[in-house]
Amino acid sequence: MQGKWRENLIKIKPYVAGEQSNDKDMIKLNANENPYPPSPQVKKVFEKYAQNSDGLKKYPNSDSIILKDAIAQRYNVNRNNVFVGNGSDDVIALSFMAFFNSDKPILYPDITYSFYPVWCSLIKIPYKTIPVDENFEIHAEDYYTENGGIIIPNPNAPTSICKPLDFVIDIVEHNPDSVVIIDEAYVDFGGESAVELTKKYENLLVTQTFSKSRSLAGMRIGFAIGSEELIATLETVKNSYNSYVMDSIALEVGTASVNDEEYFKECVNKVIATRERVRDELIALGFDVKKSATNFLFATHKEYSAKEIFEYLKTKKIFIRYFNVPRIDNYLRISIGRDEEMDKMIAAMKEFFI
Amino acid sequence: MQGKWRENLIKIKPYVAGEQSNDKDMIKLNANENPYPPSPQVKKVFEKYAQNSDGLKKYPNSDSIILKDAIAQRYNVNRNNVFVGNGSDDVIALSFMAFFNSDKPILYPDITYSFYPVWCSLIKIPYKTIPVDENFEIHAEDYYTENGGIIIPNPNAPTSICKPLDFVIDIVEHNPDSVVIIDEAYVDFGGESAVELTKKYENLLVTQTFSKSRSLAGMRIGFAIGSEELIATLETVKNSYNSYVMDSIALEVGTASVNDEEYFKECVNKVIATRERVRDELIALGFDVKKSATNFLFATHKEYSAKEIFEYLKTKKIFIRYFNVPRIDNYLRISIGRDEEMDKMIAAMKEFFI
Repeated sequence: MQGKWRENLIKIKPYVAGEQSNDKDMIKLNANENPYPPSPQVKKVFEKYAQNSDGLKKYPNSDSIILKDAIAQRYNVNRNNVFVGNGSDDVIALSFMAFFNSDKPILYPDITYSFYPVWCSLIKIPYKTIPVDENFEIHAEDYYTENGGIIIPNPNAPTSICKPLDFVIDIVEHNPDSVVIIDEAYVDFGGESAVELTKKYENLLVTQTFSKSRSLAGMRIGFAIGSEELIATLETVKNSYNSYVMDSIALEVGTASVNDEEYFKECVNKVIATRERVRDELIALGFDVKKSATNFLFATHKEYSAKEIFEYLKTKKIFIRYFNVPRIDNYLRISIGRDEEMDKMIAAMKEFFI
Repeated sequence: MQGKWRENLIKIKPYVAGEQSNDKDMIKLNANENPYPPSPQVKKVFEKYAQNSDGLKKYPNSDSIILKDAIAQRYNVNRNNVFVGNGSDDVIALSFMAFFNSDKPILYPDITYSFYPVWCSLIKIPYKTIPVDENFEIHAEDYYTENGGIIIPNPNAPTSICKPLDFVIDIVEHNPDSVVIIDEAYVDFGGESAVELTKKYENLLVTQTFSKSRSLAGMRIGFAIGSEELIATLETVKNSYNSYVMDSIALEVGTASVNDEEYFKECVNKVIATRERVRDELIALGFDVKKSATNFLFATHKEYSAKEIFEYLKTKKIFIRYFNVPRIDNYLRISIGRDEEMDKMIAAMKEFFI
């Protein structure tokens, strides 16, 4: 007898991440990872557990208090204004479940993080994308329309473009009936954070990640800052999905990282310096490159096709990101690596252009 | 202007976990944690990262290959039959999303893991609970009814009762139109695993956890074994929710644990020996105690109220679990700790009974 159980399986198109490779020689500029290691303070956590790992037999603190307190202190808010999760993907997915319960469509830019439509599909949330303009700029007035919620990355990805705080205020003030999420995954590389605005606007949630500016993509730590009511709702959803999502090691590693402000600034500044230099070099090579407030550059070449450049670099074991999607199918997203990695990429491009 | 954004917030009742405490003197027998530390092999992972934690700047392997391969080898299946997640709560929540997409109610016992109704509420899945009998036994024929899916823990919690594999076969064979999930969180302490049956029944999924028998509650590792089709669907849902849910450390710690079979068996056998001794002592004290195939005992006293015993023990800094819910509100769930912890609990009970 052939069962009909297959009829109950979900039908969904998943997110496709940047290519992975185990090749040690490859130059990986396709996942917006940080080229510098995490804070050396992180090692102390591992030294402690190398001495004694008995504590792992117990469940982690489900309120993630040590990490929340460290973040609250760093960002000048209270513990009850902080939510932490397994990467900002987890934080944003839970936020979609928590805040986007309406029959009206949620709004986000047409060119943006490609996980948003996937979450909408998974959680069955109606959505409408708002086109960015021909320069990939987002305009606040396009969001003065009825909606069930708004999410905008600032800086946006993969465009790298950052909007000023006035833009966020404009959006929030025109949308008192919606929760507005500002996804600040890249804000540390040059954007202006809206965290302070969450003290004034109870319907504003700001999300950030430890994966980029804190070099901890491998550890899966993200957080949100918002009003006590938004955070309490997020906690309820988390406790209805997986109470202990943050493991004990991630909590301690995250705490060690947040507490090392000096190292954090040093790494971020190195990435910014490399970015600006490489941007100038790409422009000199004939690229049009957006002004970036992130740890990547968004570029298109006047003569050569993005796809061909992408494929040529791949033969040289240099991986950058190419999106075969409308409007940006002649653009490249290039993560900022170490100076010598970027030099090799520039050299390979020059070879290709000869 | 007062915004209406609150109308879009989710309304839901979260799962309530066992009480936590930071008191080092407390005897914690309320969360079914293992009293023994994880495998000593786990420390080698931390030693490695204490030397060099640079790798954490990169995203983890999103396919979790090292851990899947270790589990596949241990359980005699292929990599494509294994799914891993952030604790079995994550694995089961994703399974609800992946497999329970029907208008018909899913079925599970009325007395069981209290997270199931919470997930149904979060993911909007209709459900119907099937009463266990007056001895808390589950009967397969009660599940010969139309449904959108079935989940049964075996052994069941908090009853500690285990059913033989014939019961699982009976359920699966009578439900060819549904995915059947057997939640084996406690199976290592005396149950018979249905993993081998997944080779025959494509609609059977078995879930397990590293939190109990492998002493890694703090690390958040769970897994599922099933047909390639079920596992591929789970992977799609995971990649639509959070592609990198397993952090790099959890993947390596889990692998080290699975590969140390000898230590695993030694710990499980110690817990079982303590459980059997304590069960006899509780019976001698006037308790009715179910035959347990788990790392906890489910007990009711002929004369004294469960709630009062629970509260008395708390004053002695001994935490066991009491559920103030219908049918089991005169029962206690007692996790198996070290022998000396159990002796203190028995001594405290004797004090109370004098």
